[in-house]
Amino acid sequence: MSGVKHRVVIVGGGFGGLSAAQTLAGADAEVTLIDQRNHHLFQPLLYQVATASLSTSEIAWPIRSILRKRGDVRTLLASVTGVDTVAKTVQIEGGPPVPYDSLILATGARHAYFGHDEWEKFAPGLKTLEDATTIRRKLLLAFEAAERESDPARRQALMTFVIIGAGPTGVELAGAIIELAKISLRDNFRAIAPEEARVVLIEGGQKVLANFKPELSEYTLGALRRLGVEVELGAAVTSIDADGVVYGDKRIEAKTVIWAAGVQASPAAKWLGVEPDRAGRVRVEPDMSVPGLPDVFVVGDTASITMPDGKPVPGVGDAAKQSGRHAANVIKARLAGDTSAKPFRYKHAGDIATIGKRAAVIDFGWIRLKGWIAWWAWGLAHIYFLIDTKNRLFVAMSWLWIYLSGQRSARLITQGDAAKQVPKGE
Amino acid sequence: MSGVKHRVVIVGGGFGGLSAAQTLAGADAEVTLIDQRNHHLFQPLLYQVATASLSTSEIAWPIRSILRKRGDVRTLLASVTGVDTVAKTVQIEGGPPVPYDSLILATGARHAYFGHDEWEKFAPGLKTLEDATTIRRKLLLAFEAAERESDPARRQALMTFVIIGAGPTGVELAGAIIELAKISLRDNFRAIAPEEARVVLIEGGQKVLANFKPELSEYTLGALRRLGVEVELGAAVTSIDADGVVYGDKRIEAKTVIWAAGVQASPAAKWLGVEPDRAGRVRVEPDMSVPGLPDVFVVGDTASITMPDGKPVPGVGDAAKQSGRHAANVIKARLAGDTSAKPFRYKHAGDIATIGKRAAVIDFGWIRLKGWIAWWAWGLAHIYFLIDTKNRLFVAMSWLWIYLSGQRSARLITQGDAAKQVPKGE
Repeated sequence: MSGVKHRVVIVGGGFGGLSAAQTLAGADAEVTLIDQRNHHLFQPLLYQVATASLSTSEIAWPIRSILRKRGDVRTLLASVTGVDTVAKTVQIEGGPPVPYDSLILATGARHAYFGHDEWEKFAPGLKTLEDATTIRRKLLLAFEAAERESDPARRQALMTFVIIGAGPTGVELAGAIIELAKISLRDNFRAIAPEEARVVLIEGGQKVLANFKPELSEYTLGALRRLGVEVELGAAVTSIDADGVVYGDKRIEAKTVIWAAGVQASPAAKWLGVEPDRAGRVRVEPDMSVPGLPDVFVVGDTASITMPDGKPVPGVGDAAKQSGRHAANVIKARLAGDTSAKPFRYKHAGDIATIGKRAAVIDFGWIRLKGWIAWWAWGLAHIYFLIDTKNRLFVAMSWLWIYLSGQRSARLITQGDAAKQVPKGE
Repeated sequence: MSGVKHRVVIVGGGFGGLSAAQTLAGADAEVTLIDQRNHHLFQPLLYQVATASLSTSEIAWPIRSILRKRGDVRTLLASVTGVDTVAKTVQIEGGPPVPYDSLILATGARHAYFGHDEWEKFAPGLKTLEDATTIRRKLLLAFEAAERESDPARRQALMTFVIIGAGPTGVELAGAIIELAKISLRDNFRAIAPEEARVVLIEGGQKVLANFKPELSEYTLGALRRLGVEVELGAAVTSIDADGVVYGDKRIEAKTVIWAAGVQASPAAKWLGVEPDRAGRVRVEPDMSVPGLPDVFVVGDTASITMPDGKPVPGVGDAAKQSGRHAANVIKARLAGDTSAKPFRYKHAGDIATIGKRAAVIDFGWIRLKGWIAWWAWGLAHIYFLIDTKNRLFVAMSWLWIYLSGQRSARLITQGDAAKQVPKGE
């Protein structure tokens, strides 16, 4: 090696990329982590930013600050535009290509609209901090516009919130929005009663939280309905426009629609020139490397991988962390002379989702919990997984405050001129 | 009055408008508070959002939430476009005119560029939450771009931060930026040493904090220089462009310039059809009403008023609060049958400014403090003046955290694609 260190380039500072960087500590390598944003984001709590419970800085940390004590890691804020697998470089916008000896692509996923990209402008999804503040702005502006609207039908459309997709994100959003309306906004308006807001959760399948055990799915359905959420099952959405949603043979007038139904992997497959799977993901070997490109690894939501038991690895944060760690360990082993390709084994820690601020469902396999005890376990688990002590403390205090007072402190309409953005009822 | 209540319309939910609304509690009136934003902002701490110490939600509160227990107050999110003083209505965008019997205009001020409006795009000012996140983004992106820049001169321009105007805002920004570079960003970069950043404070006059007692001005100048801030006095800026600033016969290459030098009142004078003073403010009678329009009051930064001793009332938050309260009390007295026009008497509580995180200057008249003891007094005073208990607690904890660890938690680059916004060195 003549003193030149092995260069590892990681693209993406989410759960997968960050855990890869952390696993490479102590390896005889120079690591470059490239991300188009300056922050690592704790996505599981993003819905709480969207619903004004937490502020943006409580769930995001500058990547270079997380890695500041790692002199072997360089952090680069840049947009990747492609990968040259022959020259072994990563192309970035406005800068020279970044050479690699090993490459880990951990670029995550965006929401997908099943071939209906025109729906995106009416029904934003929730993947980034900007998505969350956009949804927060839409939610809060809808109530502001309703307060100014005199026509009852238009007012009702402004106070109707539709969430499409009843996986964990959809369920958590529905519970949080109805509690925002019924508790946090109470007494705030004079012309409208925010507690009369309708929250409609539309799901194409027959169950909410379809990946959970049937008992927990059923409990969640009941808990949502007790909160006042209208749940529509077996309802495939066929059209979305600025005024509402069509599903099955029904139309619902709603000025605010949120998409929580599908995701599409990032363009990593295009960069590599390989054929993606239906969700845009790169099919990888059991060791997370790309077939024919042993020095290139794809991890997390960008990778398509099936376990020996035939089950696909789910697109959750923990799977991203585990696969990022695995790719880093394969590189470390190679640097130590061990080139046997150890296969990735995903360990499913469990499924977890909250329904409002007093109930949750947890399935850790060996234990299943539901109700308030699951809610407390959910809260403690999420606080534990936050990046640093300050955020653990602040998120815990924010939750305690909301729990006791009902008041949410992050009810800000930002980005541009709020008054000019008030939607019209017509 | 035949059972119809007196209608008071307040335009602006800043210190002046909010204190007017609060003073009107218990009056036999219906109050409407109109603001183009949904939040009241604690402007004295805005520079801490701009320098990544506090998050936006720590210094801003939804106006309708602050007033939720006041059934007599209606809050309206709307842009005011004019006032009809004959029909006695306030015109708003996209809605019917709002009729008033008494009107209080408390619309504040924006920064002014002394006839050089073309400077605004190179040197943003600091008045709103969006201004603060814009400046935060510029500051953080400059370091990101410097990390990627190989040319030493361009790198130096990226790491040079110029603040124009050495009043409290300029002094506080300069201290906070140099500490951001020297303490919070330490060890975060590999190609640059952020502690080598230059912070240049340019002031046209001969003193920093010109309104303070000479002894405190001189102390502040020394404290800034000890921190490493380059202070240029008697230096009138003659040109600002994308690459730097010209003052006197010197030019400094700097990619980040912040304007803290002048303000201009909001368009209230235009709405009323009266001749404004040089700073765009409306000249008012001693009772804060507009000459010839006894039912219209102008308060805070939008009003031009001189005390009997010939001194102008300064454009500070406390003066806005006091004048808002005065206008509300005049209306209350009239409703109770007392039409004597009581003159406003401004009581100057004191001057206060911080220099970084270990020094401050305070002049309460009966007591003058400087150094660390003033810093603690400053912190306690500001926490006390925050709107609610939760924010008091959170801001206090955030400060304690930064004080002990040096780590700032709000170092987020948001609004759009961070990587695409990295400024070019050339």
